[in-house]
Amino acid sequence: MERVNTIDHCLRATWQAVAKMYNEQAAKHDTTMATAMALLNIDTENGTPSTALGPRMGMEATSLSRILKAMENRGVITREPHPNDKRVVLVKLTDFGRKKRAEARETVLTFNNAVYAAIDKEKIDHFFEVSKTINELIANKAIYNQD
Amino acid sequence: MERVNTIDHCLRATWQAVAKMYNEQAAKHDTTMATAMALLNIDTENGTPSTALGPRMGMEATSLSRILKAMENRGVITREPHPNDKRVVLVKLTDFGRKKRAEARETVLTFNNAVYAAIDKEKIDHFFEVSKTINELIANKAIYNQD
Repeated sequence: MERVNTIDHCLRATWQAVAKMYNEQAAKHDTTMATAMALLNIDTENGTPSTALGPRMGMEATSLSRILKAMENRGVITREPHPNDKRVVLVKLTDFGRKKRAEARETVLTFNNAVYAAIDKEKIDHFFEVSKTINELIANKAIYNQD
Repeated sequence: MERVNTIDHCLRATWQAVAKMYNEQAAKHDTTMATAMALLNIDTENGTPSTALGPRMGMEATSLSRILKAMENRGVITREPHPNDKRVVLVKLTDFGRKKRAEARETVLTFNNAVYAAIDKEKIDHFFEVSKTINELIANKAIYNQD
């Protein structure tokens, strides 16, 4: 069978490996990767409107809502009406949430630092550049005939 | 809020964009990305043992089994005992399956060719090299203290 190393396959396999690793690290801290990602996207000082979290995390509203409910039960966030606009739900970190966020940040930094220590920065710049090009080609619908 | 462009975030966002694009293309061909991926991993001539498909697709046995059942119902594959070892289930393409596989292959090639046409090959080589380094660091458990 042919076995071409395609860009899509490389992206998928690498992201799956990173996600598995992050989930294992999250489990060591009694949490999940989804919770850790949400924590990292919440402003430590002012909190973040719940509607802003979904797009940042690339997640549908229903999945996000389930995660936020679990996080509230766990005591890492509170959800309260925005002081300036009561229609907006503001997600804020508790003190415990701030501690868990710091752990998540450390996990992300440790991974990124390990990669930067293992390979030339120029190559990592190219990695980002290729990824940017892929995202642009897709956003511009420049790949397939649009019929 | 700090907004560092991390390697993990880049991988996740780019893979999600590719997966969304592939799902849209699959829908145009009345199929799904999971089916298309499975088709591409089945040998056109001799078929492929079902147990070999899961690891190739990075998929758990239960999810794979559900997909193979749907593919059999759809008429793109057959499942039969391996001629040399009846304990092994051999997944084989039907003629219709070969047609759908060719469509999936075209979709993958079109995407990959578009990326190669848009950016220097050297940068794509570095993209692969960085991904390989990430996978090796993870496989070697070289990133986090193993406690």
